Amino acid sequence: MIRTLALFLTALTAVGMGQPAPARRPVSLLVTNGIVVTVDGSRRVIPRGAVAIDGRDIVAVDEAPAIAARFQGRETIDAGGAVVMPGLVNTHTHAPMVLFRGLADDLALMDWLQKYIFPAEAKTVSPEFVRAGTRLAALEMIESGTTTYADMYYFEEEIARATRAAGLRGVLGQTIIQFPVPDAKTPAEGLARTERFAKEFAADDLITPAVAPHAMYTLDAETLKACRALADRLSIPVIIHLAETKDEVKTADEKYHMTPVAFLESLGFWGPRTLAAHGVHLSPADIGVLATRHVGVSHNPESNMKLASGIAPVEAMRQAGIAVGLGTDGAASNNDLDMFEAMRQAAFLHKLVAADPRAIPAPVALEMATIDGARAMGMDKVIGSLEPGKRADLLIVSMSSARQTPMYDPVSHLVYVTRGDDVRTTIVNGKILMRDRKVLTLDRVKVLADANAFADKVRSAVR
Amino acid sequence: MIRTLALFLTALTAVGMGQPAPARRPVSLLVTNGIVVTVDGSRRVIPRGAVAIDGRDIVAVDEAPAIAARFQGRETIDAGGAVVMPGLVNTHTHAPMVLFRGLADDLALMDWLQKYIFPAEAKTVSPEFVRAGTRLAALEMIESGTTTYADMYYFEEEIARATRAAGLRGVLGQTIIQFPVPDAKTPAEGLARTERFAKEFAADDLITPAVAPHAMYTLDAETLKACRALADRLSIPVIIHLAETKDEVKTADEKYHMTPVAFLESLGFWGPRTLAAHGVHLSPADIGVLATRHVGVSHNPESNMKLASGIAPVEAMRQAGIAVGLGTDGAASNNDLDMFEAMRQAAFLHKLVAADPRAIPAPVALEMATIDGARAMGMDKVIGSLEPGKRADLLIVSMSSARQTPMYDPVSHLVYVTRGDDVRTTIVNGKILMRDRKVLTLDRVKVLADANAFADKVRSAVR
Repeated sequence: MIRTLALFLTALTAVGMGQPAPARRPVSLLVTNGIVVTVDGSRRVIPRGAVAIDGRDIVAVDEAPAIAARFQGRETIDAGGAVVMPGLVNTHTHAPMVLFRGLADDLALMDWLQKYIFPAEAKTVSPEFVRAGTRLAALEMIESGTTTYADMYYFEEEIARATRAAGLRGVLGQTIIQFPVPDAKTPAEGLARTERFAKEFAADDLITPAVAPHAMYTLDAETLKACRALADRLSIPVIIHLAETKDEVKTADEKYHMTPVAFLESLGFWGPRTLAAHGVHLSPADIGVLATRHVGVSHNPESNMKLASGIAPVEAMRQAGIAVGLGTDGAASNNDLDMFEAMRQAAFLHKLVAADPRAIPAPVALEMATIDGARAMGMDKVIGSLEPGKRADLLIVSMSSARQTPMYDPVSHLVYVTRGDDVRTTIVNGKILMRDRKVLTLDRVKVLADANAFADKVRSAVR
Repeated sequence: MIRTLALFLTALTAVGMGQPAPARRPVSLLVTNGIVVTVDGSRRVIPRGAVAIDGRDIVAVDEAPAIAARFQGRETIDAGGAVVMPGLVNTHTHAPMVLFRGLADDLALMDWLQKYIFPAEAKTVSPEFVRAGTRLAALEMIESGTTTYADMYYFEEEIARATRAAGLRGVLGQTIIQFPVPDAKTPAEGLARTERFAKEFAADDLITPAVAPHAMYTLDAETLKACRALADRLSIPVIIHLAETKDEVKTADEKYHMTPVAFLESLGFWGPRTLAAHGVHLSPADIGVLATRHVGVSHNPESNMKLASGIAPVEAMRQAGIAVGLGTDGAASNNDLDMFEAMRQAAFLHKLVAADPRAIPAPVALEMATIDGARAMGMDKVIGSLEPGKRADLLIVSMSSARQTPMYDPVSHLVYVTRGDDVRTTIVNGKILMRDRKVLTLDRVKVLADANAFADKVRSAVR
């Protein structure tokens, strides 16, 4: 109705002007009057730009007047001079662990795991817990501009349902682990669960099911091979923790006289659409293997610092051609899911490590959090930049705070002074999930209340 | 008048109850129903606490019912379960440099200085520029919970006037430097300016004037000694950059065959009420000198990372008994003034450096940003914690965002998931500067507009 009226008025105006009006293509949504940071092939930034969206897809990105001349939006959002950018891609998290955030910090790894995380997980993790945790994580991600995330946890089908309901895009990995865990007594049970999960979400527009063997040190060779075989049979991605700590490297050496990468290579484990989280302790030969096998790597600077895991060789991996995305890791170890912090931390950390303030400049940090993260997950043809034909996953980010004034360079500001809270509007698959800070797909009050109720159970579990 | 009425009503109620009411002391302000994080000697956290304030001072900190029984506030702020904490102490910044934030990033130090910062300063820094910049910095600091800051820049008397008008507390150092700068052609001119400035603000309730010799590598021995002599004569503090880069250490070695600390020690420069910024490249002997001379150190983790300056030996300095506070450095090199980020970065960085997740735990990061910062500036008897007799410099900090849910430990959350934007209310010297995110002492719209007008001049200057 509105569309018809608009077309009629357009025609009328044209008649009134005494000249034929070019027909404007009707589309579902226009986002206009923004500083459009495209992260496209030429890294174009359009000072007063617009994005035309039809259904789930971006159909055009251009100067605002050019878009206005070509397209008629059923709905139009005026960005009012704010930044319009691709949605952020969080390449590593454990969404429901937001319910453990800040439960215990500043402890040695084994104390943290054995006194807090393992007992809490054993006593509290259930389908209900996972649903409540995923909703809280989804709320936080939508509010802070993450539009796609890679996950690995238990009851991953519940995570997938909650993610889809919230409207987020996810590559969601069902965890496989050698010992009994909340959703599987054996790895075989976990594999069977993965297969059911993968079939439930086959060809889903938002959810990509994955198999997530936990790590080389928590699984035997047979199970690791079975995970790879299942992934190949079902054509699904693989997510695994890799070389996160020195202990992992030591274990691999003691058990197999190999590095974790080399051991997994010896099993034929590596292949495309494989996402390795952390990649902290890697030899040059390891980096060569990951590059040759087209494995994507998720770099988690905040988690690696807070847990004192070490410093990932990000520059060396990038130089080898590896797609390195950014991740927050689970909120039990970070303690939040804010990808703007991940960008800033990646830029800060690698300047310090390289003793060179030119290392990981702001444009690279932004690429890592968008297009490179998409590439690490094998999704760079679909998401990660604002380009016609890609899915409409985008953000409007305010640049008007005192801390963002003045602004000489929007990309610098996105990395060095912007936080998740500056995101005003979040759009995924062409659908508005948050508009002017109001999340439309989740009942905020209920999500927070449910999370707090589960927190009481967590407190009892570790008392 | 209101106070008299309140006393009358209190008496009346007591008569009505038929029993003598204990007289409640009238005070100017009560902040109640908060999780009071005192950072006092016993690091007390009061789950439902209150703070009684009379005039500029804290008169009591206790459980909310106990405060209600003893005090009658002319005004009461209900914190509604948010955190009430000491105001943050930023021990190192160059306030007006907010006008250069993001002007140029990710460059080698000399390119950054010589192509951008020096030309921009030469062409734009004036009393008007400094006033506009300080107002913008003050707005950002009030909005992000800094209540006291140490500064060094040019036209420091203008900074002092703008700081006092905004209601912030400052230890403000007039920069002395060997070469001609915007406010002084010679060091002698700078010293004369310092003396006038110190006399104008002698015994000011909010402003502590200071002399700020820029660094040992930008001043000769005579001028450094003259700065110390002036500070002693006027009884004012000294602020200096110290051992920020390897180049500084190299310069000191080449010129004097000493470290920067040893060279300054040889001049009799060190003494109490001296604040050294950065302290990145220090030998064990240097640390010994600073400890013996009771020099405070400002640690600036974000600046040191972004400029690739190096890693300050914070744990060693703390073990030697040095008061180590936190600073943001100027916004040209960070790029913001958010002390919550400084806390988080200090905790993250030193865990990584120590390869131990127990290093700089959250309570220590909080101490560094409050009481230790106060101690580093010789002000720990006056500010830095919520204790009776200290100045009423405090914050109300919201803990209700998705990213802060659930909350197991308020101190963990302050360090690991809170940002400056979560500060709701900022009080300095008993005066409310920001209430529920509305800054009362600055015209926000005008401050941002003035800053943007100066940014246009900065753009022209570096074109």
